[in-house]
Amino acid sequence: MPEFLTLLPPDEARALLLSRLPAGTVDSEAIEVSASLNRTLADDILAPHPLPQFERTTVDGYAVRARDTFGASDSQPAYLTLIGEIPMGDAPAFATAEGQCALIHTGGMLPVGADAVVMLEFTQRVKENEIEIFRSAAEGENLIRVGEDVAEGQLILPKGRVIRPAEIGGLFALGITSVRVARVVRVGLISTGDEIVSPQEHPQPGQVRDVNSYTLSALIEKSGGVAKRYGIFSDQFDPLKDAAAQALSECDVVIVTAGSSASTRDITADVIRSLGEPGVLVHGINTRPGKPTILGVCNGKAVIGLPGNPVSALVNGYLFVVPVIEKLLGGTPRPRATVQAKLIVNLPSQAGREDWWPVKLRESPSPNGRGSRDEGEYHAEPIFGKSNLIFTLANADGLLKISADATGLSAGEIVEVQLI
Amino acid sequence: MPEFLTLLPPDEARALLLSRLPAGTVDSEAIEVSASLNRTLADDILAPHPLPQFERTTVDGYAVRARDTFGASDSQPAYLTLIGEIPMGDAPAFATAEGQCALIHTGGMLPVGADAVVMLEFTQRVKENEIEIFRSAAEGENLIRVGEDVAEGQLILPKGRVIRPAEIGGLFALGITSVRVARVVRVGLISTGDEIVSPQEHPQPGQVRDVNSYTLSALIEKSGGVAKRYGIFSDQFDPLKDAAAQALSECDVVIVTAGSSASTRDITADVIRSLGEPGVLVHGINTRPGKPTILGVCNGKAVIGLPGNPVSALVNGYLFVVPVIEKLLGGTPRPRATVQAKLIVNLPSQAGREDWWPVKLRESPSPNGRGSRDEGEYHAEPIFGKSNLIFTLANADGLLKISADATGLSAGEIVEVQLI
Repeated sequence: MPEFLTLLPPDEARALLLSRLPAGTVDSEAIEVSASLNRTLADDILAPHPLPQFERTTVDGYAVRARDTFGASDSQPAYLTLIGEIPMGDAPAFATAEGQCALIHTGGMLPVGADAVVMLEFTQRVKENEIEIFRSAAEGENLIRVGEDVAEGQLILPKGRVIRPAEIGGLFALGITSVRVARVVRVGLISTGDEIVSPQEHPQPGQVRDVNSYTLSALIEKSGGVAKRYGIFSDQFDPLKDAAAQALSECDVVIVTAGSSASTRDITADVIRSLGEPGVLVHGINTRPGKPTILGVCNGKAVIGLPGNPVSALVNGYLFVVPVIEKLLGGTPRPRATVQAKLIVNLPSQAGREDWWPVKLRESPSPNGRGSRDEGEYHAEPIFGKSNLIFTLANADGLLKISADATGLSAGEIVEVQLI
Repeated sequence: MPEFLTLLPPDEARALLLSRLPAGTVDSEAIEVSASLNRTLADDILAPHPLPQFERTTVDGYAVRARDTFGASDSQPAYLTLIGEIPMGDAPAFATAEGQCALIHTGGMLPVGADAVVMLEFTQRVKENEIEIFRSAAEGENLIRVGEDVAEGQLILPKGRVIRPAEIGGLFALGITSVRVARVVRVGLISTGDEIVSPQEHPQPGQVRDVNSYTLSALIEKSGGVAKRYGIFSDQFDPLKDAAAQALSECDVVIVTAGSSASTRDITADVIRSLGEPGVLVHGINTRPGKPTILGVCNGKAVIGLPGNPVSALVNGYLFVVPVIEKLLGGTPRPRATVQAKLIVNLPSQAGREDWWPVKLRESPSPNGRGSRDEGEYHAEPIFGKSNLIFTLANADGLLKISADATGLSAGEIVEVQLI
C-alpha cells in the first residue's frame, strides 16, 4: 500500500518534539574536574575567593611607589634605593618606603608600599643598591589587582556551560576539583527489519548488516550520550513492542531504526502509539533524506523512528537525536562552527522540501599562491548517490542544507557546510 | 636581566618544528570498530566484497522487466501477471519471465529476470494476480546495483582518515569489526615555578595553583593524546632535567610549562638543550600571547616550553601542541570549521606581530525577525584582559586571529572565529 504522510518542515518538527519533552533535564552527578571535559555543568559555580588572591606583577622589573618615578626620563632618571628581591612563591618580607624599590619577577607578589612595577628594560643598576629609572610608572602599571580576574562570590561558570579546557583551568585556579554535571543521556537503540543481521554475521542473499545501530551509537557518544543496543527485531508488533517498552524503562530516549520496507515503518509508528501518551507527534518530515522519520513522546521520553537507509538514519540523527540529547543535558548552545566554501556545480532542489547533501570539501588553488585562508578558499562538491549508500556519507566532509524555499543553489555561491 | 629574543612568526615556527620531527608516526594498535570514534586509521582499508552484495530496490513496488512496461501510461496501462511477493531478508524463490512481475519492498532483492521496479504509486491491482502499470520503467530504475556503493577491492577508507560515525557505518556495512589505528599520543607535562602549587593545595600568599597542567591535559585528550603529569618542579636545573629526561623516555612529546619569571624560562631552554639533539629550534615567537614559547626537538621527539601564564599556555597549546599530536597520529587534516561573525569594535594590533584575541560570540538581532542564520549573524566581542586571567578565556567562545601584516581590524568587519 502506498504511504501517504502529512509532512512537517524539519525545524517545525524538531521544535514540536522538544516542546513536548519535560523541562527538567537528566539527573546530575559529581565528578572530578580533571575528567569533566565536554560534560555539562548542572550547577552555577561561584568563586570561593578572589583571583588573584594577592597583587601580582605581570613583568620582570622593580616594584616602586609610582610617585617616586614621576617625571623620570632617559635624560632625567629617577634614582631609587634597592632594598631587596622578592622571592617567587612567597610574600615579601619587607615593605618599600619612599625612595625605595625591590627587584620582582613576573608573577611575584607586590610588597606593601609599592603600587607599580617598572620594567627591567627601562632601568639600570648603577650601584650595588641604586637603580636608575628611565620612565615614569602610573599607579597600578604592570600589576594585576586582587580580584581582577574574578571577585569573591562572582558567578564564574553558569549551569549549562559545557566544559572545555579553559573552564577546567578556571575551576582549578580556584581550587575547585569536583563539580556536578548532567549525567550522560542513555539512548536505547532498536533495529528492525527481517533483512537485517548483525555486522558480525555473514549475510545471506537478501540480507544486509545492521549499520544504523553503530553509526547512531557513535553519534550519541559524540553528543554526550551513551547508547544501549537492544538488538535486531523482525517485523512483528509484539516482540518489538516488548523491546521498546524495556528500552523506554531503562533509557532517557529510545530510537527505533526501521527496516526499509513500509510495513516495518508502520509497525514502528504503532509501537510508539502503544508505549504511552501522547505517542506519535510527527510522522513524515519534509526533508531529503529522512521523509519517513517519526517523532514521538511517550510518558515524557522521546521515542524516534528513523528510516532504515543508513544515510537517512545518520543525517536524521544529526537533525533530531542530537538536539534531544542536548536538551536533556541542559547545555547552553554554542555557536555552530561551519566551513564556508564555494559550491562548484549547480544543485537543483525540489521547492518546499529541505535537502541535506553530503559534500566533499577541497582546498581551492589559492589565487595569490599564499597559504593563507580566504573566504571561499574551499570548494564544495556534492556527492551524488542514493540514500542507501553509506559511502556517500563516509566520503563526505560535511552536509550542505538547501532550504525549503530554494529551488536549488547555483555554482559559484558561497555556502555554509556543517562538518559531520 | 632583560630577555632579548629573535622572534619567529608562528606559522614559520610551527613549520620548522614539524619539519624536524621524524616522518614516522606513533605505533598502531588493533581496536574494535565500535570503540574507534575519533581514532586515526593506520592502514588503508579495502572492501572485502562489493556493497551491496545483491541487486536491491530503493522503493516499494513491483519488480518488472523494463521492456514489458514500455509505453505504459494512465490511459494505456501495461498489464502484468503477479507471480508472488519477495520476502525481506531472503533471496526470491522464483524468476520473473516475460509479462510477469513480483511485489517487492524497499531493500528487497531483485528476482532473476527483473531489471527495474515500478513504484506502487504508479500501479493498481486489478485482479488477484493482475497488475496495471501506468508508467514505463527504464532498465535499472529504482535499483541499486551490486557494487554501486563500493566495488570489491576498492580503497574505501585511506590510512590517516579520522573515524567519524559515517566511517563506522561503512566499516560495519562490510563486516569489518576491528581496525588498526594510531596509538594515542603520550604527552608528558612538567610544571615549573617556585610559586606553583597543586590545585588541591591551599596556596599561601605569593603562591598560585597549577592550572596549565590541567588545561593542557584536557586539550591533549581532545586532540587524540593522553597526558601524563610529572609534577611541579622548582626553578632548579638538575631536578627539572631529570624529570624531563624521564618524561622524554616515557612519552612521545614533552611539555614544560614555565614558571612566569624569566629565570625559569631560561632554565627550560637549558634543559631542552641538555636533553638531546638538535635541542632548541625556536626561542621566542612573534605572537601575543605566547612570545616566550620555546620549540625544540630532542632525539626525534618534540619538547615544547610554554609560558606560565594560563592564557598564553593554552592558546599556544592550540597553536603548537595540537599540530604536533596531529602529525604524530598521521591524520589527514579536515577543513577547520569556524564561525563567521561581525566584529563590533575596532581592534588595534601591533603590525609585525600575530595576535590571538579571546572573543565572545553573541547572536545578533535578526533584521528580518526570522530565526534563520545569515552570514554575520553573530557579533564578535573581544574580551580584554591580561594574559594571566584565565577567565578571559573561560568566558570566550573562540579565538580571533589578527595577522602580522595587519595593524588591526575594524568594527563591522566580518571575521572568522575559531571555537575553542
